[in-house]
Amino acid sequence: MKALREAIEKYGVGIGTEVVKVDSFLNHRIDVALSTEMGKAFYEAFRDDKVDCILTVEASGIAAAMTAAQAFGNIPVVFAKKGDHRNVGNDVYTAEVYSFTHQKLNVIRVSRKYLEKGMRVLIIDDFLANGEAINGLMDILRQAECEVVGAGVCVEKGFQPGGKNLRESGVKVVSLAIVDAIEDGKIILRED
Amino acid sequence: MKALREAIEKYGVGIGTEVVKVDSFLNHRIDVALSTEMGKAFYEAFRDDKVDCILTVEASGIAAAMTAAQAFGNIPVVFAKKGDHRNVGNDVYTAEVYSFTHQKLNVIRVSRKYLEKGMRVLIIDDFLANGEAINGLMDILRQAECEVVGAGVCVEKGFQPGGKNLRESGVKVVSLAIVDAIEDGKIILRED
Repeated sequence: MKALREAIEKYGVGIGTEVVKVDSFLNHRIDVALSTEMGKAFYEAFRDDKVDCILTVEASGIAAAMTAAQAFGNIPVVFAKKGDHRNVGNDVYTAEVYSFTHQKLNVIRVSRKYLEKGMRVLIIDDFLANGEAINGLMDILRQAECEVVGAGVCVEKGFQPGGKNLRESGVKVVSLAIVDAIEDGKIILRED
Repeated sequence: MKALREAIEKYGVGIGTEVVKVDSFLNHRIDVALSTEMGKAFYEAFRDDKVDCILTVEASGIAAAMTAAQAFGNIPVVFAKKGDHRNVGNDVYTAEVYSFTHQKLNVIRVSRKYLEKGMRVLIIDDFLANGEAINGLMDILRQAECEVVGAGVCVEKGFQPGGKNLRESGVKVVSLAIVDAIEDGKIILRED
């Protein structure tokens, strides 16, 4: 997606060989116009897949999930919660997700009542690196007997194995930008 | 706001005398059409206040912050992060926020570079009870020498002191629905 690629080239910061910082427009400060455009791009990619609901995980997936849901005509968003939430209750699906960014194991949970059997669910997240978060969400959707329509991702780190593994297992993965490498602080984006 | 009041009356669950569960449409599963309408309502309430930026705190404030920012013509959203984020870096403003829901003290943080001196900032959050989160955000805005335009809240617990204290200290607080009490499981809403 052109506008996202331009934002990454202009404002993204590459650190070392693995860290892509896009917190000036994607996951700390949010460029709302760009987020709205990304929502439309996810709609274009999955419009024929009969999506009933969008599933993401707090916190930085919520913005893109919201704008995608708007583009789909205001379908519901469900976001998995991390950690122990008194408010979520016990009637939940859970999965374990290791966060390389925060170097800890999170339990994510979704109330059973918001995922109905047979529902066609699109997963949206801001980042795809090792695929931990998306695999955790897919685990929850398997428990709920929902159909995984696919995964829409804002920024994929193409040099980490998450996207490749998901695609090889048959999941439709659409990434709006793919980072192939970080070289001397420069973020190298894959051609569309 | 009529649509929110109706959703609370229809889907909200009151527990004991203090807990208002609205996770079926506000803060776990999100009714995206309703969220979009709430964004417009915040715009109507603060449209003459020259808002430059919206500040919220992860995770459940992000949806309403996004839709409000859209209604303001796509102004930026900044969301404070909880806990220790490797990605946020050290050049941050911090504040301590006690969460009664999760019964723990969170440190929230915002990168200094996203809050410029003199910026007019609207705080948005899903809930206002004791006012801990909004006071933490206001503390950060004071450190950044930003102007606090006010606070827009989806659901205020009118029986807890946060809203009263903020208003008495001169903050413009706009709550789209105010819960006056929970009686025998029934949520009693204040008249508009």
